[in-house]
Amino acid sequence: MEQPAYVLLIDCPDRKGLVYDITGVLFHEGANIVENQEFVEHEHERFFMRTTFSGNVDQAAILQKIRALLTPGSGVRFAEKRRKKIVVLVTKEQHCLGELLVRHQFDELNADILAVVGNHETLQKFTHQFGVNFHLVSHEGKSREQHEADILEVVRRYNPEYLVLAKYMRILSPDFVARYPNRIINIHHSFLPAFIGASPYRQAYERGVKIIGATAHFVNNDLDEGPIIVQNVIPVDHTYSVADMVQTGKDVEKISLARALKLVFEDKVFVNGCKTVVFD
Amino acid sequence: MEQPAYVLLIDCPDRKGLVYDITGVLFHEGANIVENQEFVEHEHERFFMRTTFSGNVDQAAILQKIRALLTPGSGVRFAEKRRKKIVVLVTKEQHCLGELLVRHQFDELNADILAVVGNHETLQKFTHQFGVNFHLVSHEGKSREQHEADILEVVRRYNPEYLVLAKYMRILSPDFVARYPNRIINIHHSFLPAFIGASPYRQAYERGVKIIGATAHFVNNDLDEGPIIVQNVIPVDHTYSVADMVQTGKDVEKISLARALKLVFEDKVFVNGCKTVVFD
Amino acid sequence: MEQPAYVLLIDCPDRKGLVYDITGVLFHEGANIVENQEFVEHEHERFFMRTTFSGNVDQAAILQKIRALLTPGSGVRFAEKRRKKIVVLVTKEQHCLGELLVRHQFDELNADILAVVGNHETLQKFTHQFGVNFHLVSHEGKSREQHEADILEVVRRYNPEYLVLAKYMRILSPDFVARYPNRIINIHHSFLPAFIGASPYRQAYERGVKIIGATAHFVNNDLDEGPIIVQNVIPVDHTYSVADMVQTGKDVEKISLARALKLVFEDKVFVNGCKTVVFD
Amino acid sequence: MEQPAYVLLIDCPDRKGLVYDITGVLFHEGANIVENQEFVEHEHERFFMRTTFSGNVDQAAILQKIRALLTPGSGVRFAEKRRKKIVVLVTKEQHCLGELLVRHQFDELNADILAVVGNHETLQKFTHQFGVNFHLVSHEGKSREQHEADILEVVRRYNPEYLVLAKYMRILSPDFVARYPNRIINIHHSFLPAFIGASPYRQAYERGVKIIGATAHFVNNDLDEGPIIVQNVIPVDHTYSVADMVQTGKDVEKISLARALKLVFEDKVFVNGCKTVVFD
Repeated sequence: MEQPAYVLLIDCPDRKGLVYDITGVLFHEGANIVENQEFVEHEHERFFMRTTFSGNVDQAAILQKIRALLTPGSGVRFAEKRRKKIVVLVTKEQHCLGELLVRHQFDELNADILAVVGNHETLQKFTHQFGVNFHLVSHEGKSREQHEADILEVVRRYNPEYLVLAKYMRILSPDFVARYPNRIINIHHSFLPAFIGASPYRQAYERGVKIIGATAHFVNNDLDEGPIIVQNVIPVDHTYSVADMVQTGKDVEKISLARALKLVFEDKVFVNGCKTVVFD
Repeated sequence: MEQPAYVLLIDCPDRKGLVYDITGVLFHEGANIVENQEFVEHEHERFFMRTTFSGNVDQAAILQKIRALLTPGSGVRFAEKRRKKIVVLVTKEQHCLGELLVRHQFDELNADILAVVGNHETLQKFTHQFGVNFHLVSHEGKSREQHEADILEVVRRYNPEYLVLAKYMRILSPDFVARYPNRIINIHHSFLPAFIGASPYRQAYERGVKIIGATAHFVNNDLDEGPIIVQNVIPVDHTYSVADMVQTGKDVEKISLARALKLVFEDKVFVNGCKTVVFD
Repeated sequence: MEQPAYVLLIDCPDRKGLVYDITGVLFHEGANIVENQEFVEHEHERFFMRTTFSGNVDQAAILQKIRALLTPGSGVRFAEKRRKKIVVLVTKEQHCLGELLVRHQFDELNADILAVVGNHETLQKFTHQFGVNFHLVSHEGKSREQHEADILEVVRRYNPEYLVLAKYMRILSPDFVARYPNRIINIHHSFLPAFIGASPYRQAYERGVKIIGATAHFVNNDLDEGPIIVQNVIPVDHTYSVADMVQTGKDVEKISLARALKLVFEDKVFVNGCKTVVFD
Repeated sequence: MEQPAYVLLIDCPDRKGLVYDITGVLFHEGANIVENQEFVEHEHERFFMRTTFSGNVDQAAILQKIRALLTPGSGVRFAEKRRKKIVVLVTKEQHCLGELLVRHQFDELNADILAVVGNHETLQKFTHQFGVNFHLVSHEGKSREQHEADILEVVRRYNPEYLVLAKYMRILSPDFVARYPNRIINIHHSFLPAFIGASPYRQAYERGVKIIGATAHFVNNDLDEGPIIVQNVIPVDHTYSVADMVQTGKDVEKISLARALKLVFEDKVFVNGCKTVVFD
């Protein structure tokens, strides 16, 4: 009979003997390691570990004993075996949301989409087709503070672990972001070279780029500067109109976001300052 | 018996009936079209055509008759069937130069490397191994003007059609560039997002990028802003050190440069303002 | 005011003067060519042309005059400007169907999905969510002939231009295929190296492949041997379980099928014997 | 002062407590782990570990103590810090050999090319340009046994750790292969779908493939069936002639072989039956 599998996640300052000490706890607690990944980031001497094990174990005892080995404030936790709980924020574009809703319906997302929140009603009917709640929180006639307070009020009802910005086209304030540290995931169009400001695909077209890319990242206070999870590109050529580039951008965005969410929701991504460690 | 194949290149303002008029000249002059590519860039109403044909034809007559059809100043020319004549400029890094020298030796470059010019002697012995001339033109103790004048003096002896900057690490002045309009090809490291200034791979490492790219482009007065010919990327991850990223950058640079040169030397690239049209 | 754009498609034996003759008809009929692509396949001396033009023209006159120039039996037609009419066949897997239904709903497919036909009811509810008809045509207790006759009976009601096999897992008979020559598009898992028979992903896992691919192709009498439209791959590694490979296969399949349909529905694909010419 | 880094490689049957036991030995011997990768292949319950550590340690003591923990016959060894010693076998094509010789000259291969052995003299001069020994061992007028005996006689003088088949176009006998178990690396053209027999690129052209690939693999008794190390692809289209496909195949072959050698020579590849575990 198959035993349950546990995933233990550790993020702490590096020191000598760490793997030995940690696997010692696991061994003495009856765990049987089936997969183990570690990474030491040497600039900051930071240690990351993701261990999958089976066995009839006492999770609380394991946590307590491992915490006793580490510097106070170290990250030690078990990945929850259930699907993650998420809320998705959107504006008008459907390509990323559609990708998430279809995967969700067939249980390929490893997450429950508790609700979709939009600042336009454009995607309401589409979301409802999948039996998922949609909340319209318009920004019209509101200050940014008021709009974010209204969004928060809705989001809090669901108590999600992650917010996914699936082409949500408004900038979130540092205050808002600070409430979900490393728990907001955004998909960003990004090119070679990068284009800033309005109409990025028009700029890409003008510049004659040969590749269009996308970056899925955690959101932090520096807009579009959070830790990168996934980057992908699709080639284009001189025959692509601006509209063709927009469509290509949509395709690479949805693929990149879906891949990033899969990695995050399988607890394979650690945040390391302004970078990520991805155990894929 | 196989007849000779001609490649005719036309670059002119678009107007109604152009394909008909041009192919009419070709037909009446006895040409048999075997491949034909056209592209109209609608923002500037510019017409590009690359036609391959066989037949026992009078090239001068064809050029004269087609020029008579077009606005004065239009580009009309036959691609030369022989290999292009090029001079390669380098500094200290060998990866791009090595790619070109090996392809050259086995006649896969579609060009004759007449000489290599370096501002350091690092690659002298390596170049000589391939039986190719190397000229050391040091910049030490010289003004930029004087150094460029010295380079020009060497380059002119060879009368090359193209200059290839194979990791030549000094900035060329507008005066120098103006002497070889759309005839200087550079390979540029470029990332998602783009990093400017010193130590780009250190910056990429710090930012935690997941992709490393390169851009081969024509050089014009705006440094690193000339028309893009080829862009490529290679994925990286958190385990890559700065040194690993540098090596990955070298690999993607040499592949991109070689691909760009192949396209240019087969006369498949037109410059269209700050962009290219690539008939690949 | 923008004039209507026409797309003219020609597929015929090659001969001297063809481009001139054809563009002559277009010129004299008042057409203004905005894009023109030709390709001559030299093994069989076959000529393919896709021309986009604007102008106030008489389509029937153009067809008549161009046909008069060509060998009898040559293909000459205008691409219809409306969306293509298609019926999608499925079995139990939703990934390709979901991609098509979402694109369809937001008018990114360039086709109307008239109906979905399934030999299982698994995807009925999902299809209905998108407001699209679903027909269950079970194969249970039927000969292949009878089952195909039942499918045909349903399909004919819709008179589609293309049938899309979106993971339809039964083999179609030559008789069935012959009714829709070059009008049935299939998505096929295919690996490096190719695996035939049951459980291809199990075989891929056993073989330890590093890449998983997919092939979208027209269906002809040789099963899985029809003209290839698109092939894509996604890298995998030793940590991938069979389930991970299956999921990766789904992702590359849906991307490849969507890309192939986009090309076909924009009339950019010609069939050339057992190969395709793709003007992308 | 930087301490030396050791790379320990373990390949053995899996059992409970293995990581703990092994890291215990390392800890007690004064090692400081800086990177650690493990993988358990569950079908055969096989354990793979690659550990990098620093410290002032007794390597012999570590090996002895770890061996005592494991089933007899388990693989336990330190990666040698020096460059690998290799001999390269070639026939007439230079693209892979050129890639290796250039990397070798600039110390980017992590290996010493002790000699090149060719069954034709085509690449003799080219090899000598790089100051590397070339041995012509013609197969003309010899039985396969005799030819292989002659090659062995040359190869043995150099006592290489790996043989690299850089487009060596003759089949090696099981007897020959058995002398270098998992120490012969080959580069194989391979397509989607795979083409067997003569003129694979002609076959690919006839089939109209849209992707060309290559597979770098260890050689075992089943020709072209050894454990896969790296697979790569490059897209092609209908405009590619057979010659273009051949050139594309060369490019993807040399990239794939160079990548595979880098991984193997950095001791990042384990053989696991007919598959590999690649800790990249």
